[in-house]
Amino acid sequence: MPTCLTAAGCKSRRSRLLASLDHGVDAVIVHSPRNLTYLAGYYPSPFLFRSQNAGAMLILGRDGASRLIADNLVETFADRSFVDCVDTPTWYNGTESAPMRGDVLTRATLDALRKEEFGILGIDSAVPAGVVDAIREVRPEVRVVDVGPTIHRLMRSKEPDEIAAISRCCEVAEAGFAAAITGIKPGMTEMQAYELINNACMEAAGEPVILYGDFASGKRTESGGGGPTARVIQRDDLFILDCSVVIAGYRSDFANTFVIDGGFSSARLREMESACLAAIAAGEGALRPAVLGREVYGAVNREFHARGLDSLFPHHAGHGIGLGHPDPPYLVRDSDDALVVGDVVTLEPGLYERGVGGMRFERNYVITGDGYLTLSHHRLGLSPAR
Amino acid sequence: MPTCLTAAGCKSRRSRLLASLDHGVDAVIVHSPRNLTYLAGYYPSPFLFRSQNAGAMLILGRDGASRLIADNLVETFADRSFVDCVDTPTWYNGTESAPMRGDVLTRATLDALRKEEFGILGIDSAVPAGVVDAIREVRPEVRVVDVGPTIHRLMRSKEPDEIAAISRCCEVAEAGFAAAITGIKPGMTEMQAYELINNACMEAAGEPVILYGDFASGKRTESGGGGPTARVIQRDDLFILDCSVVIAGYRSDFANTFVIDGGFSSARLREMESACLAAIAAGEGALRPAVLGREVYGAVNREFHARGLDSLFPHHAGHGIGLGHPDPPYLVRDSDDALVVGDVVTLEPGLYERGVGGMRFERNYVITGDGYLTLSHHRLGLSPAR
Repeated sequence: MPTCLTAAGCKSRRSRLLASLDHGVDAVIVHSPRNLTYLAGYYPSPFLFRSQNAGAMLILGRDGASRLIADNLVETFADRSFVDCVDTPTWYNGTESAPMRGDVLTRATLDALRKEEFGILGIDSAVPAGVVDAIREVRPEVRVVDVGPTIHRLMRSKEPDEIAAISRCCEVAEAGFAAAITGIKPGMTEMQAYELINNACMEAAGEPVILYGDFASGKRTESGGGGPTARVIQRDDLFILDCSVVIAGYRSDFANTFVIDGGFSSARLREMESACLAAIAAGEGALRPAVLGREVYGAVNREFHARGLDSLFPHHAGHGIGLGHPDPPYLVRDSDDALVVGDVVTLEPGLYERGVGGMRFERNYVITGDGYLTLSHHRLGLSPAR
Repeated sequence: MPTCLTAAGCKSRRSRLLASLDHGVDAVIVHSPRNLTYLAGYYPSPFLFRSQNAGAMLILGRDGASRLIADNLVETFADRSFVDCVDTPTWYNGTESAPMRGDVLTRATLDALRKEEFGILGIDSAVPAGVVDAIREVRPEVRVVDVGPTIHRLMRSKEPDEIAAISRCCEVAEAGFAAAITGIKPGMTEMQAYELINNACMEAAGEPVILYGDFASGKRTESGGGGPTARVIQRDDLFILDCSVVIAGYRSDFANTFVIDGGFSSARLREMESACLAAIAAGEGALRPAVLGREVYGAVNREFHARGLDSLFPHHAGHGIGLGHPDPPYLVRDSDDALVVGDVVTLEPGLYERGVGGMRFERNYVITGDGYLTLSHHRLGLSPAR
């Protein structure tokens, strides 16, 4: 599975991590899947048996040296990662019974660490207790510090290769939206709508991708969404399409609401649509460095309040995305998160009224020095041009 | 996502675990996704944003009491698990910025453990070092033991609800095979073949599922398979379909090889097909408790050897499946794994010849007291009846 990440990007992120750590930290072990992608560009495709339940470890030295350890079944993915050195110990050789998979990783990690000199060891929040206890057996004097929060904080400000990775997800998801506009017809189930969007995304990506989110029609829109069901889509139904495409760990997350078959929509729905689009524009007007999450939320909600619709807006105005969902910054009523350059965020105003219908519109943005760039390019509105 | 697991099954597995542990173990913490499914029936769907990067903890008392901890975003899945007690601490409330997700889980785990009395704590191999270190801060005298190997060993012998879960995956995958037989045509790409099989599986499951495996045509079959590509399928191509459907953590894993458009196949291909089908029958003849993996491999390979084809058979004869892939027992040349009642295994003889083509045929079985039952029911052979 090709990644948009680059060797330079991964190296830059490792350097930023090492520069952010206390000077006493001599080595760092990273185990969480998202951190392995972030710092090494390592992402085993979930669409092969080789990657099922596979783990990996990344060891960073204070001098910047990077070593990825992953077993022989995921060697292809390890070889495509961006590190100085790759170890692929044999877990299963096809002629003998295989031991527990995690044990192979632990042993190889201990072997690699034997070569390192360290008094203070940084670990991320996923490193198993068994690994740390085994290290302590050999080096009882080692002090262990959690570098997970530092990595979590660094992840906010995306680098160019990460923006490229998220933009790629947006492009693939846009192919899904285009297929939804021309393909969803009355009489189809929500599951069939999911399938046609999924197919279009996979065609655009050239490989299987993970597609998740809300694929909800009719009455179901009134409570905001949910995954696809066997519900048969009716003419004049609203359809909330709010979905994420995951490629190599990164993801998009944008939405539109359609009137199925481009048909009738009531004055009330038009009023709600108009309020949502004004809200998204108001939110966009607030997107720039140093603005607080609460201020972005306030800008969005002010449009609803002005129209007496704010009681129909029950959720966040948006949030960060990247290797997680939802990630910081949180664009909510009481958020003190201040936007920074490189934040990738969504804005997703929505209104939901019993007996009328629900709708949500959402775009993805990256925060720049003087404002933002829009990463998603689908058209917003109940009646999309075909 | 509905599971076939039952409250009785989960309770039985927890009882078996506690009975297998040293009598000194007072409490157990479980964190690995597969162990959480196994012991609690907990499986967060990957097709919702709520589950992205979510973790959970299961705490078992020596008295059999079970408590699952998972944050508020995955409450739906936690509530559907089969435990005595569910804690769903708030991670993200939609009005304030959210802390690091794992910290919420760690804190709730420590809170729950405060109520427990224990001197010896069992943990699985995924419990993070941070959790164990935090426990040691409060109880420096605690002794920690790894119960991961015990769980791994218990997993071999599947209980009836687990067999039902795997059978369900087989049924869904069979719908995919049926769609492949009628739907794959010359001129389609392998990706389009993947899409039609994927759609059929999702229709049969009534929800999005993970479908992974080999979807390889023409020349690509000679090296055994691989994920779907943009390669255009030709008339008379071989097509190896070797795929797994994952539902609620469990999976099937079976295969067939088709001649596309049901057309021509050479005498050499017919010879190879006949050898493979004889090999699978010979392997089936060896499936019963106490038989060693090497003996099953031997039965399979003997058929190839007798025909002078064994040099074209480069891989295992089969392996266990369930919550992982490949799992023990390993049906390979030097395997000492002895079959036990409740093992779910595959047999997958295959032959691959440069310039001719490659093929693989595979079924899934559960080992019974006097032999086996076949869990997969697709037809094997190059020219399937349409």
